[in-house]
Amino acid sequence: MDETSLSDTPRVVILGAGFGGLTAARALSRAKASVTLIDAQNYHLFQPLLYQVATATLSPADIATPIRSTLRDQANAHVLLGEVIGIDATRRIVSLDDWREVPYDYLIVATGARHAYFGHDDWEPVAPGLKKIDDATEIRRRILLAFEKAETETDDERRRALLTFVIVGGGPTGVEMAGAIIELAKKALLRDFRRIDPASARVVLIEAGPRILPAFPETLSGFARKSLTRMGVEVLTGKAATDCTSEGVALGETFIAARTLIWAAGVMASPAAKWLGVEADRAGRVPVDAHLNVAGDARVFVVGDTAAVQWEETKFVPGIAPAAKQMGAYAATSIRAMISGKATKPFRYRHQGNLATIGRKSAVIDFGKLEVRGFIAWLLWGAAHVYFLIGFRNRLMVMLHWAWAYISFRQGVRLITGSTKLP
Amino acid sequence: MDETSLSDTPRVVILGAGFGGLTAARALSRAKASVTLIDAQNYHLFQPLLYQVATATLSPADIATPIRSTLRDQANAHVLLGEVIGIDATRRIVSLDDWREVPYDYLIVATGARHAYFGHDDWEPVAPGLKKIDDATEIRRRILLAFEKAETETDDERRRALLTFVIVGGGPTGVEMAGAIIELAKKALLRDFRRIDPASARVVLIEAGPRILPAFPETLSGFARKSLTRMGVEVLTGKAATDCTSEGVALGETFIAARTLIWAAGVMASPAAKWLGVEADRAGRVPVDAHLNVAGDARVFVVGDTAAVQWEETKFVPGIAPAAKQMGAYAATSIRAMISGKATKPFRYRHQGNLATIGRKSAVIDFGKLEVRGFIAWLLWGAAHVYFLIGFRNRLMVMLHWAWAYISFRQGVRLITGSTKLP
Repeated sequence: MDETSLSDTPRVVILGAGFGGLTAARALSRAKASVTLIDAQNYHLFQPLLYQVATATLSPADIATPIRSTLRDQANAHVLLGEVIGIDATRRIVSLDDWREVPYDYLIVATGARHAYFGHDDWEPVAPGLKKIDDATEIRRRILLAFEKAETETDDERRRALLTFVIVGGGPTGVEMAGAIIELAKKALLRDFRRIDPASARVVLIEAGPRILPAFPETLSGFARKSLTRMGVEVLTGKAATDCTSEGVALGETFIAARTLIWAAGVMASPAAKWLGVEADRAGRVPVDAHLNVAGDARVFVVGDTAAVQWEETKFVPGIAPAAKQMGAYAATSIRAMISGKATKPFRYRHQGNLATIGRKSAVIDFGKLEVRGFIAWLLWGAAHVYFLIGFRNRLMVMLHWAWAYISFRQGVRLITGSTKLP
Repeated sequence: MDETSLSDTPRVVILGAGFGGLTAARALSRAKASVTLIDAQNYHLFQPLLYQVATATLSPADIATPIRSTLRDQANAHVLLGEVIGIDATRRIVSLDDWREVPYDYLIVATGARHAYFGHDDWEPVAPGLKKIDDATEIRRRILLAFEKAETETDDERRRALLTFVIVGGGPTGVEMAGAIIELAKKALLRDFRRIDPASARVVLIEAGPRILPAFPETLSGFARKSLTRMGVEVLTGKAATDCTSEGVALGETFIAARTLIWAAGVMASPAAKWLGVEADRAGRVPVDAHLNVAGDARVFVVGDTAAVQWEETKFVPGIAPAAKQMGAYAATSIRAMISGKATKPFRYRHQGNLATIGRKSAVIDFGKLEVRGFIAWLLWGAAHVYFLIGFRNRLMVMLHWAWAYISFRQGVRLITGSTKLP
């Protein structure tokens, strides 16, 4: 309870309670160190299922656990709610936005990434991205409200725009959102309206590159595209959004009238590079060495989506949950070694695979040597996600919600919270 | 689908999808009428359990069902999302806030009540009330954030104020909130913090009248007071709040420093009296006759919390869910009779009882001739609430959340959504 009693105990400060930070904190449970985990939210968010909150299958509490609750039995762990505004690596101090200063002996920066508009920040209000719970409930609000407004709209053209949903970006999030929205329209909402036919909704997935799911092998990209098309999604590749407005999206000369745009086209790392006074790469990430250290400072680790980690010479470690967890565990192991005066080994990324779900019965998984697709892949995807969810309660609730949605074709969480006006 | 095809069918318009309005809509399922249910939200809210969303046991979606989903199989029912701004009883038209006009042959006004500050509207920002989902998540945010801020507060006096929770109003909502907050502090949060002891939180319940639960028999009021006191709640009766600020609450000369105030001291009916051009009573309710009609207009019914219905000469029908449901069903029956050219009977309220829960193991129920209290009452309370919840999915989820909270002493929905700053 008393800071002074810890003076002989090394202080490990972890910034961010995502997959990297939380894994590091837990891996330090038996370390002779005081561990302080700082996050701007009071919960750990299971981001891979966030799209299901945005599309009304799960509630926020199903995919989020209070950080304190997770670490309540770890005696050496302290949880602080606060926002980082700076790091002083010379004085070894982290500054929070309420003027608090938190001293450290070892620092793990795991502050993740945020969606980015690459010079078009004015698109954010009309094309929100999906990284936080509040993003998800806002997107859910817009999608559900578009159907409500369409039901009473008398003008054909405006009704059409209300029933058009454009997702910009064909990575896993874009694919998952497109699949979930078309299913919401064609299954869950099917008999709910009297004037409109929700099944007539148009869902457009736009990818600037030559194919969707570019991180996957071409065969799986092709399979995903075919599956989405069969479900009714219009997949447009090789088309970049040149403008996003509240009326729709421009693709060069073409304009798609749509009242709901969703941004899934790119992420930018947290401003850790600025805090640390180093140069970021193009995606805002901090370049780290083989020990995940920055600028040769063995006391400072950067892990997860914020770190640019070389992998197999030409590539970087991907920004996915398993990679962040490996890096978090690695940093914890290194710190424990250093505390005991032992040598540390360099980080080695073990790629377990890439996966993306397409709809309620299909997914694609790339295990490297093995490619799985369709229903079997979807079962594996579901099992993996439930397994990795933190907390027995969340696992149980998510399984029940899925079972309910699967059997009944209804989605229970169709609540428009906040304002009932469209932007 | 086409309005004109309904021209021979009487048009019933129902304002509000609470207990009264939704019951009326369902009771008209086999009526030869077109039924339009208008609500400002897209969901029906099970208000009696709203305090459990505010105290982090349930998620919003557990106690709310999309109205469309509930009525999807009722062919004569139309659901409209919209806010009523006026009624023209001469032209028989309801006006919505987006300039739409909805014509009716029969009208049921079931727009409920909102918490009221009786001339002190400036207290609302510092002492929010509990009527809507957004109210509940806001109160949850404030309660959880107060503990978070207390953990890092170095000033003793300010920490004390952060750990003091004042509930103004000793009716069922006030009693339920007080019990739930003290249990959150003493059980669910017990081992989550390192610097503060959540169990040292002070929960104060203030009632201006001589006893809490004034609508209950004195024996049950006394039991509830004793139970709350034993749980650690300070119950102050005969004390009225004379000022509410962000620093605390004044009770005449006394000032209680508290960063979290919750308003449970009174409600005011929706502005239906104004829409209908009649004089409201002191609580804003519309005076209705024995047929629940206003000003002798047999086509306009007012039901639920918005209606002032005489009961047993000296009393009014209480503003509780069973009463609203009875009135909604009565209005539907009367309209069906009128459509068939039959006579209507006057409304007769059957009082089934009053109930309030005190904690995770205790409740009080007044059945009139029989009083039940303690654990048995709590079991009855739980069974009744689960039974009356709409939708199999919600019932199952609520039971599971309760089972989890009961067994584990944890509350799973402890998410601070929205801003992480205190007002």
